[in-house]
Parts: sequence; structure tokens; C-alpha cells
Amino acid sequence: MTGLIVHRIGFLGPRGTFSEVALRQRPEAEQAQVLPYTSVDTALAALRAGEIDAAVVPIENSVEGGVPATLDSLAHGEPLRVVAEMIVPITFVLAVRPGTRAQDIGAISTHPHAWAQVRGFIAANYSACRYVPATSTAASAVDLAGGAHAWHDATAYQAAICHEMVARDHGLEVLADDIGDNKDAVTRFVLVARPGRMPAATGADKTSVVLFQKIDYPGGLLGLLEQFAVRGINLSRLESRPTGESLGQYCFSLDLDGHLHDARVAEALKGLHRVCAQVRFLGSYPRADGAPVAVSPAHSGRSYEEAEAWLAALEE
Amino acid sequence: MTGLIVHRIGFLGPRGTFSEVALRQRPEAEQAQVLPYTSVDTALAALRAGEIDAAVVPIENSVEGGVPATLDSLAHGEPLRVVAEMIVPITFVLAVRPGTRAQDIGAISTHPHAWAQVRGFIAANYSACRYVPATSTAASAVDLAGGAHAWHDATAYQAAICHEMVARDHGLEVLADDIGDNKDAVTRFVLVARPGRMPAATGADKTSVVLFQKIDYPGGLLGLLEQFAVRGINLSRLESRPTGESLGQYCFSLDLDGHLHDARVAEALKGLHRVCAQVRFLGSYPRADGAPVAVSPAHSGRSYEEAEAWLAALEE
Amino acid sequence: MTGLIVHRIGFLGPRGTFSEVALRQRPEAEQAQVLPYTSVDTALAALRAGEIDAAVVPIENSVEGGVPATLDSLAHGEPLRVVAEMIVPITFVLAVRPGTRAQDIGAISTHPHAWAQVRGFIAANYSACRYVPATSTAASAVDLAGGAHAWHDATAYQAAICHEMVARDHGLEVLADDIGDNKDAVTRFVLVARPGRMPAATGADKTSVVLFQKIDYPGGLLGLLEQFAVRGINLSRLESRPTGESLGQYCFSLDLDGHLHDARVAEALKGLHRVCAQVRFLGSYPRADGAPVAVSPAHSGRSYEEAEAWLAALEE
Amino acid sequence: MTGLIVHRIGFLGPRGTFSEVALRQRPEAEQAQVLPYTSVDTALAALRAGEIDAAVVPIENSVEGGVPATLDSLAHGEPLRVVAEMIVPITFVLAVRPGTRAQDIGAISTHPHAWAQVRGFIAANYSACRYVPATSTAASAVDLAGGAHAWHDATAYQAAICHEMVARDHGLEVLADDIGDNKDAVTRFVLVARPGRMPAATGADKTSVVLFQKIDYPGGLLGLLEQFAVRGINLSRLESRPTGESLGQYCFSLDLDGHLHDARVAEALKGLHRVCAQVRFLGSYPRADGAPVAVSPAHSGRSYEEAEAWLAALEE
Repeated sequence: MTGLIVHRIGFLGPRGTFSEVALRQRPEAEQAQVLPYTSVDTALAALRAGEIDAAVVPIENSVEGGVPATLDSLAHGEPLRVVAEMIVPITFVLAVRPGTRAQDIGAISTHPHAWAQVRGFIAANYSACRYVPATSTAASAVDLAGGAHAWHDATAYQAAICHEMVARDHGLEVLADDIGDNKDAVTRFVLVARPGRMPAATGADKTSVVLFQKIDYPGGLLGLLEQFAVRGINLSRLESRPTGESLGQYCFSLDLDGHLHDARVAEALKGLHRVCAQVRFLGSYPRADGAPVAVSPAHSGRSYEEAEAWLAALEE
Repeated sequence: MTGLIVHRIGFLGPRGTFSEVALRQRPEAEQAQVLPYTSVDTALAALRAGEIDAAVVPIENSVEGGVPATLDSLAHGEPLRVVAEMIVPITFVLAVRPGTRAQDIGAISTHPHAWAQVRGFIAANYSACRYVPATSTAASAVDLAGGAHAWHDATAYQAAICHEMVARDHGLEVLADDIGDNKDAVTRFVLVARPGRMPAATGADKTSVVLFQKIDYPGGLLGLLEQFAVRGINLSRLESRPTGESLGQYCFSLDLDGHLHDARVAEALKGLHRVCAQVRFLGSYPRADGAPVAVSPAHSGRSYEEAEAWLAALEE
Repeated sequence: MTGLIVHRIGFLGPRGTFSEVALRQRPEAEQAQVLPYTSVDTALAALRAGEIDAAVVPIENSVEGGVPATLDSLAHGEPLRVVAEMIVPITFVLAVRPGTRAQDIGAISTHPHAWAQVRGFIAANYSACRYVPATSTAASAVDLAGGAHAWHDATAYQAAICHEMVARDHGLEVLADDIGDNKDAVTRFVLVARPGRMPAATGADKTSVVLFQKIDYPGGLLGLLEQFAVRGINLSRLESRPTGESLGQYCFSLDLDGHLHDARVAEALKGLHRVCAQVRFLGSYPRADGAPVAVSPAHSGRSYEEAEAWLAALEE
Repeated sequence: MTGLIVHRIGFLGPRGTFSEVALRQRPEAEQAQVLPYTSVDTALAALRAGEIDAAVVPIENSVEGGVPATLDSLAHGEPLRVVAEMIVPITFVLAVRPGTRAQDIGAISTHPHAWAQVRGFIAANYSACRYVPATSTAASAVDLAGGAHAWHDATAYQAAICHEMVARDHGLEVLADDIGDNKDAVTRFVLVARPGRMPAATGADKTSVVLFQKIDYPGGLLGLLEQFAVRGINLSRLESRPTGESLGQYCFSLDLDGHLHDARVAEALKGLHRVCAQVRFLGSYPRADGAPVAVSPAHSGRSYEEAEAWLAALEE
């Protein structure tokens, strides 16, 4: 529990996406109204505008990497805070309208990221089929089933690649299941809120930040990483993203082990604030896997307290 | 000129994409047969299979960042080599069939990356329109024009976002031009070939590599960056990509200033080979902007020669 | 002025040494009783025992390097504090009893460090003379003059190498002056006191510490230096000293630019306290040359305050 | 065996010093003529002049630290090479003329370094005695015994502190033995020759160098240490020495694990040659303790060969 009061939660829709699966993991969702949004941008804009109290969006996939829309939307504009993370195994089925046979399939639709993750299955079994991109895996299924919210003419394809739950919910038949090339694929989702109440430190926490370099800061990324290294802080994610100004201008989006309330993390962030053009704090929150952060004795909270006491004693 | 003998060049199609614009910059394309492919994967697979002699694919956009399909396809499978880079300004137009008025537009189609780059224009002018994803900017225009190669029912949308050239080529009308949010947006394309003849060093070169870490190598990325730092080598691109094995397992795709035939680059790559699980060399090639590499005297070729001579003299 | 109340100051005697010259630079010496000691050890022992309130001892010579007796005595035992530094140009004369001619000189006495610094002069002019070591330059002169405090039989040599002042004071004749091989040689002396009142920060300060490494701390000296580098702190002196336990076990005695009351210095010292077995603080005090410390904007006191305020604001 | 043809070996005399003990460990000394010199400088000058073929001098004491005269003489002037090292346990006796009793002793003589190492014994037993400095421990004994080469009037003291061997050789009586404060004290001596035949690599080697920094090289010592760190090279000794030009101008004298013929050492030295004003190579030679150098697989000779082969293969 984050302690957040959440009446309305948005998610990357439509219903049936992996974002909704992630959302269902959260206790906050039990009593709240859940609202699908057609893009990460619109979900986070609604959150910033106060229309919803929190949003669930994908941030990283173990096969495809970071989700640019989420990384960029969090990195710019009104500050938001990640307050929780959820990990969802990514499994796909090939779904059709009842009665459709494999040989009837001439075109297949799904979200481009899903398409990339079933490449091997398609090459082995449906290499002759056309690909029809969809805005989400769920949308491809919903449209195929002929749902009321169809966004384009569903007659153009005969099969959808989606999560099993959404296929079942819309009366589709599963021709093949677990068709992902990587059976261990997972996507990490984050629960995002407006700044307010930071989740308490649990000893198994993560902190997300975005670092923008000063043009005149020599040493670049190496210098930034040293700020973590001297405080014994491990990074679990690091991605460069263009700042959009010109080729070769990057900011760095990263997750580090530990909580803002850990002395070593606070000191590292202050150190980065001094040498960066901007440090954007995206939140400290419990790790989804609950694994305690390993800290060497030299960088423990106790070691920080002892150093503080030692320094104070020098002043007699 | 790369000195490559190129009879057939593939590119990320269909005709009219920015990849074709990039391809047209190359002298090799003048006499060669040019062939569109429906994806980066299929273009590079055709190259690996010997069906074509080279391929032009996008590798990095100044707004959206690295192109995962290209980065991943180059990082795995049979080795390929980048032999040239091309930079293409990215400008978009809103194209319609002759006679269509702004108020007639209820849905707009384009590639998701293009859609991301015109977000501001859409929000200001067409916020009520539906978005229909397409496999490329060109495909959205071709389909709208009702071309023979239409991939799905074009009746679903009334406007396409594409390059001006392709709109004109297919008889579409431009309702608004230069609609990108970032007027300086560019995409970097690479000309890829099978290993063979490496482009000669020009003094204004770039080298691309992918680094896979050893699990037991302490210090992680910091240790890898130090291999560059001690040889005075600057990085112009750095991206982490998941290896696909599990969350938090990354490889690093990067461009450095200099050529494999520069002593400092050769030594750095050998140093990385020793500490990495794998170093994948993607090629040394001239920079598109022709800007000479700045090298401090301590790391110049002459300094390397002097050090070699000094060491030899210690042996009497 | 250090603000110290000093009734009795010791110095490395006997009278006439360069330590006394250094002592005479201090305003504290004007009203105080000054007492010569026969060694650095005995002077600092008297200070620790409360017999004197301060002591002046040499710490570093621009030609010979650090003074081991001072470095080691400060590094071990009851803590003491450096409260000021004095720089004394080192010039030597060849002094004889009135009437002695160059050709009468068969043996020459002085302190071994002084002997090392006039090596060139001796080789050129008195290469056939024997060397008689003395416990100080002044002692060689005093004994030659036949003073009451002679420590050994003065008949053994006919010339002393000492400071001009002591030669004059004891009625000796100067046969040659400014005979040092290095005309710019200086020795740095320190005024040492018991812990108490730390000199205020002036903007042109130095801090002296001794670092003892943990056996299990990887990276050794490199890791310690990084603690300074990430805070933009420059070192003006660095010496390794054996800990006395076995060959290859060192502690590091060093001076850094800045005062304990500078935020970057305090943070660096706390960082070192965490990773070292022991950090021995030897004091923060004004530089003898009054040169203001150069600090990059990223590491200024203001930058530290801004980072603190930024972090606090994250907590709403 | 170094393979050196040695007819005449010098050592820091007079006879009976620890330098002679070190010399006696060398097989080269068995057939050679051995010659005492009154200082490190004169011994090394004789070696440079070709008067002797090798010299044994002390370089480092486990209690007192580096021997400045040796470090400085090796660092400047005509190049010399260390070809072997010898470790000698340092034990002292209090020696007197037969019949002298403890209560008869009013003054004690020895070399200042020895005096520093028996400080505790003296304080406990002879705190009232005067100290008479001598040019060597052996000289204090020889003079006390009334030898023909006495350098000053021996009547001035009644006891000498020296090695037991020299006391016995000169008919002195031992009043107390093993009087050193540190029972594990050792001194490391080196056998120095003119450049010529470098000792072969044994897998248990050491390399000594002196590094002079460029004024304009940023990062200072940290940058130099990184040249070792990236090649996995451990340092077993590091000392800063003033260059003599001004306070704060240092060169670094150091020993590293490994031989010039190890690929990682050769590469590190070339790297240092590029970034330093001067690298002075003092020799590669077997470790006295015979302990094999620990090398991580990433930095082994085999890893260097594999990296070389990998790079060559990139050129097809």
C-alpha cells in the first residue's frame, strides 16, 4: 500500500491491455474507478490536470527496452512521482473469431511491440500473412470481435495477437497460446501520482531520476556514474534519451537501489544536483520483487551517522 | 564513396519513406537497383542472405532516440558492418485527397514515431481526430491515395502525415506543411553491408560497437567508460538495450569518435574485449558532418608511436 | 592570528635553527616564552603533556620532501592540531671560527638534510673534506663556536653549515654564503596546538589529514582520491608513510585546499571516514601564501546550499 | 641470478652495515670484489662512472619509509636499472667496549634512522643519555672500537647501536640485543646496474618507475592511477617525492606487480608515457619473496593475445 487516497485511476487502455493486468495487482484499484486512456500521454495529462489521482503506464519491457512515451512524459512537464511498480509476465495468444481456421488467416493485427515479440512464431507459422498495426494488443482483439469501440475496419484482418484474458472476454477463440519468442518476457509498469506523500522506506526500495548534463561539465556520463560509485550505489536501469535538441544531446533516465531517505541516496542526489544542469526526481518506491537492497557496511545508514558524529566531534 | 561494389540496395520501404530520402544521398545508389523492404528485420535478413549488397535503415532520431529494431538486429545474428551514415532532416506534411477540407477529417494515419513528433500540431488543430497507426509514413499516404499496394482499408481515415515528396508523388494535396513539433528534428540512417572492405580512416570518423558485460565484472558501465576515458576517446552516442534475458540485463550500443585504425581506438577496443563478455564491432566509417575528430596531444597517433619507440628503447 | 592563548611555545632547537626563524614569523611568539627542544618528538610530547601551549616543527622541504618525524608524530598518539603554517626560505652559509682559512678545513659538520642540500657546493669546493653529522644546523655552529651546550667534541671539524643568523649570533665568520644547490629551496613549518579552537575559515585555507586504509577496501588509493575528485577538491601535498606493520602497508598524509567548514570538505571527510579504517584530522588553517582556494561553481558553498534546499523541497 | 657479469660491487658502507648484509645474499657477490662507499650518492656515481659493475643500496624501510637519497639518485641523472631486490630483517644491539656497564653510558651513537627505530628502548632504559649522530650504524661501532678509520672523536660516547655482526667483528660487547621497537622491521635493498641485460620475467616480478606529471594534465595522480587500474595492475609501493622545483611539485616513485614483458605492464607504461611529462623506467626484476603475481583473467597475457587476434580478424 502506498497510503495514497485514490478515487480514480487511469491506465493505458483500452480494457484488456497488460496495463490493466498491472493495475489489477494494486490494492488501490479495488475501490477506485478505473479509466482507460488511449495513450500514455493522455493518461499522464489527465493526471497532471487532476482528472484522475493516479495512472498505470508501462515503463520498461525485458525484450523491447524502455517505453519512450512514458520515459519522455515523466522527464518533462509538471513533475509527477512514481509511487509503486508492478511486474507483469507478458504472454500472447493468437485469437480468432469462432470458426476461423489457420488457413483462413491472411492478415494479423496487434501492437507493434507485441508484433516484435512474436516474430519467431510468425516466421515459423504465418510468414505469408500481412501485418496490420494496432494501437494496443487489446484494440486488435476488440476490433476483431466487432466491438462497439472499433477504431477501424476490422475486416482487414482475421487474427489478433493479445493477452488471453482479453480474447476470452470478447468471445474470441485461441488458436495458439504462449506464442512469445521469449518465455520469460515481463513488462514493468509504474503507478504514477502527483507529488505529495512519498512512500516510506522499506529497505527494498528503488529511486528513479532523470539527469540532464551541463554542457560544460567535463567527463560526461562517467562523472555522473562516479557520483553513485563513491557512495556504493547500484543502478538497476540506465537509459539515454535524446533531449530533442540535437543528435548527441542526451539525458539519462535511471533507477538506483535505495530510497531518498537513505543517507547515501540523498547525498548522491545532492551531488548530482551540483554537477548536473537538472536532476529530475521521479520518486522512491518499494521494489516489486521485495528484494532488500544490498549495502556495503561503508555505505550503510549507520556508517553515515558515525561519520556525522565523528565530524561533529572534531569541533569540540 | 565507400568503395563498395553495390548492385542491389535495400531500404526500409515502402517507396517514399525517409529511408529512401537517405538512400538517394548515396553515390552507390545511382547505378544500383533499389529495393524496399517492409521492416528493418527483413531488409537486414536479405542483406545477410546475400540477396542485396547493402541496406539503408534508420538508427537514431534526434527526438525519439535509437531505433530498437535496427540496434537489435545489428547487435545479434551474423555480423554486419556500418559503412556510411546519412543525416536527413525530418519534416512532415498533412496530406489529403484533393478536395478534402480540414473539417472533413475524422481520422489521421501515420507511423507511430511520426505521430509522436507532431503531437503539438495535432493537439492544437485536430485534437478530436482518431489516430490510425500505419507501418510507415509512406504507407499511410499510399493507402490514402488508393494505390495498388494498399495494406488495409483506406476508408478508415481522411488524412496522412508523411514526407512532402511522397504526398506529391501520389497526387495528394498538402493541407499543412512543416508540422513537426521540433523544427530541427533529424534522423540518422546507416548504410550497412556484409563485412569486407572497411572504409579508410579520414580523420573525421566514427566507430560503432555493442558491448556485452561479463556478469562478474565489477563496476559495470563505469568500468567500460573508463576504458575510453584513459585513451581520451569521446562517445557521441550511448544507448542501453535489454539483452532480452531478464529485466536489468543490458548491452550498450555506442558510437565513439575515431576509426579502428586510430591507435587509441584499437587499444580501447582490445581493452574492452578483455573485460567484456563480448564486443561486437559494427564498423568504422566517415562522419556525415565531416567534422574532424578532436584528439588531445597525449592520445594522438604520434603520441602512440613515440610511446612504442620509447618502450622498445628500454630493451636495448 | 589564530586566536590561541599561548604562553609557552616550543620549537625544534637549538636556538638558531630554521624552526626558530619560522617561529619568529608568528605574532603569538611576541609575548610568549619560547623553548627549544632537541627533537620533533620531544617538542610534540611536551605539547601533549601540557608543558607548552604550541610548538613549531618542520613538516616539508621543497627539496628533501616530507619530514618523517613530524608526519609520524602527528599521525599517531594523542591528537594534535595544526593551526598555522609558515614558509621559510632555506639559505645556508659556510661558517668558521675567526681566522680559519679554506685550506684549514678538513671536516665539515651540519644536519644530514642540510648536507644533502649543499652537495653541489661541497663537491665543487670541499670534495676532500670529511662529513660530521650533527643533530641540527644550529648545533654544528654552536659546537664549533665552543658554546656551553656543546653536544660532542667540536675539535673534530673546522666548519659548520648553518643559517647566517646563527653564525653571526655565535661570533663565527662566514666564508661563503647562499651555498644551497637550489636557490629557491623553502621549508614549510607548522604551528601545532592541542585540539581546541579551530582557526576560522578565510577562503584561503588548507586542511591536513592522515588516511589509514581498510584492508578489505578495494581500489586502494584510487578509491580515496575519488572521494576528493567527486567534490572538486584539489590536493596540494600527498605522501605515503609506512604504518610500520610491514612493507607495503601505507597510510597517506595529505593537504587539501579548503577548510573543514567548507561543505565540500566536510562531505569529503565524512566520505573518507566511511571507507577508511581511520581518518585522522590534523587541522584546517590559513595558507601561508594567502592564495584563495579556486572552487568550481558546482562545488561552491552556494551550490551545496542549493542542493540541500532542492532535496528538502522534494519532501513537500 | 641476474645473469650479470659482476667483477666489482659497491655498497653503502662502511663494512658491517645492513647494506653489506644484503649484498652477502647475492650470488654475484661470491666472486666479486666488494667496495664500501660513504653514501648512496657516491656509490651510484661510481656505478654510473663505470668504476663498479653494480651497487647495493637501501630503498625502503618498513618503519621509516623510502630512502630519499636512493629514490632521488635513481630518479635523476644517467639511467640506472634495478636488477634484484633483497629484504633484510633489521635488528639492533646496544654495543659497548668490554667492561663498560650500563651506568657508565652518558652518550650513545648511531645513524639517525636506527635511532628512530629504538626510540622506545632508549626512553625506557637510557632516557638521560645524549644522542650522537653517526653516518652509519657500523661507523658508530667502528669508531667506538677505536678503528683506524674513525671519523670523529670516539671519546664522546660510550655505546653504539648497530647490527650484532659488526659489534662482534670489532670486539665490542653486547649489553642488550634485539632492541628495535618493531620486531618485524625489515629494509628492502636493491641491486642496481647500468642498463643492459634485463632480468627475464619469472611470473613473480616487480617493476619500478618514476612518473613526472605534465603541468597541464588534469586529474593529477588520479589520472595516473587509472592507467594502472584499467589494466588490473596492483601497486606495492607509492611515494611522492618533491621535484625540487617548488613546494607542491611532486614526482611519484612506485613499484608495480609484474614485468615489462607482461603485456598489461607494457601497455600501462606506454599509456603513462603518453600522459606524463616523463616516465623513468627503473627496471623489472624478481620479487625477493618469490610470490607469483595475481592477475585476473581479463588482464592475463592470454587475454591480451586473444584481444590482439580478435582485432586482427576484424580486418578480414
